[in-house]
Amino acid sequence: MTDALIELRDRLRVFTREREWDRYHAPKNLAMALIVEAAELAEHFQWLSAEESRAIRSLPDGEKREAIRDELADVLIYLIELADALDVDLAAAARAKIGKNALKYPVEKARGNAKKYDQL
Amino acid sequence: MTDALIELRDRLRVFTREREWDRYHAPKNLAMALIVEAAELAEHFQWLSAEESRAIRSLPDGEKREAIRDELADVLIYLIELADALDVDLAAAARAKIGKNALKYPVEKARGNAKKYDQL
Amino acid sequence: MTDALIELRDRLRVFTREREWDRYHAPKNLAMALIVEAAELAEHFQWLSAEESRAIRSLPDGEKREAIRDELADVLIYLIELADALDVDLAAAARAKIGKNALKYPVEKARGNAKKYDQL
Amino acid sequence: MTDALIELRDRLRVFTREREWDRYHAPKNLAMALIVEAAELAEHFQWLSAEESRAIRSLPDGEKREAIRDELADVLIYLIELADALDVDLAAAARAKIGKNALKYPVEKARGNAKKYDQL
Repeated sequence: MTDALIELRDRLRVFTREREWDRYHAPKNLAMALIVEAAELAEHFQWLSAEESRAIRSLPDGEKREAIRDELADVLIYLIELADALDVDLAAAARAKIGKNALKYPVEKARGNAKKYDQL
Repeated sequence: MTDALIELRDRLRVFTREREWDRYHAPKNLAMALIVEAAELAEHFQWLSAEESRAIRSLPDGEKREAIRDELADVLIYLIELADALDVDLAAAARAKIGKNALKYPVEKARGNAKKYDQL
Repeated sequence: MTDALIELRDRLRVFTREREWDRYHAPKNLAMALIVEAAELAEHFQWLSAEESRAIRSLPDGEKREAIRDELADVLIYLIELADALDVDLAAAARAKIGKNALKYPVEKARGNAKKYDQL
Repeated sequence: MTDALIELRDRLRVFTREREWDRYHAPKNLAMALIVEAAELAEHFQWLSAEESRAIRSLPDGEKREAIRDELADVLIYLIELADALDVDLAAAARAKIGKNALKYPVEKARGNAKKYDQL
């Protein structure tokens, strides 16, 4: 079985090379495209309450869920392309970051105490 | 071998459950956090030329590259958590989206013709 | 009395010219900087409920309110610089857009019916 | 003469009240809407070089410039509504921030030395 992140990266390399789009894919441009897609994703939630946004999980499959799936996919696609352009191993980076977060927010201190989230 | 996206999703579920942070993880909140991390990533590139941003690939490993790796990781982490909160299979969504893009931008029309990128 | 948008634009022109920063202020770069500041502003609200975010209005003045004021200011500053770089009259653009919105969302249809906001 | 920021704020208050949209305008929601509009603005520049983005200034007026004007306007509209929801005087906040920036980046040190922009 090929790892999905590797498989997608390889597909995207072919996709981009076939279309000769590499010249547009400077990290600066990909970082902008990534944030634009993240905003299109956020747009689905902007006027909803937190509870309403949780309810999307249980909607019957249809236009709304497909649109959101496509936006999630677009963010992942640009993220993989950006990491590849920067020669970064995404999965290794995420594992390392989760390790750092575990040190920063130890379970016994984080539980029942949401300092990370306490912003008022 | 476990797929990295599945492995990371499972690690993040444990991480969040241990800290009792699920109550903060409404899709609306995660979508905001995702865009905030995407912006922190973009910040590294905002004053660079496209060429300078390409040069980051070849920098010796150090603070700059580690900071960028951490931001790429943060985007992936929130993306996985958001997809999980919405019960979406990220890898399947990305495969489906690449398929749609291939239909939308056929090789013979896309090559040497960057209509997607032509914005002036 | 000078209009505040004009006064701020003129101050920012002097500020930028004195530091010889014009060469960094391509619209592309300013648009990235603007979104980065908008994200820093959003970060203050990301884990709050809608109600908690409304309560910030009534907080005693202090670090939290000053930090938010500074982020609001940064967004306005980059917005004015970007409009100036593009030779756009911001106030006129906003008046024209409010006029378009009034045609798109007539009072009698918009009231008690939030189609704009109805996203589920 | 009324100050444009005050005039626009007052128009937007009427616009929102007439449509009974205040209930959607929690600062959290407005901050998301602001960032979404900033991303729609950035989308116009994402694949352009810095030089191409500067050339937009000199385009004949037409669809492209009108679309960009509308996005600039949308950012200003949500920024004014957000500041109003938080009871912040935008112009005063921007003046104060420019003062802070002047102290942080004194002319003699900032000129011919772009530490703020030096990110490699």
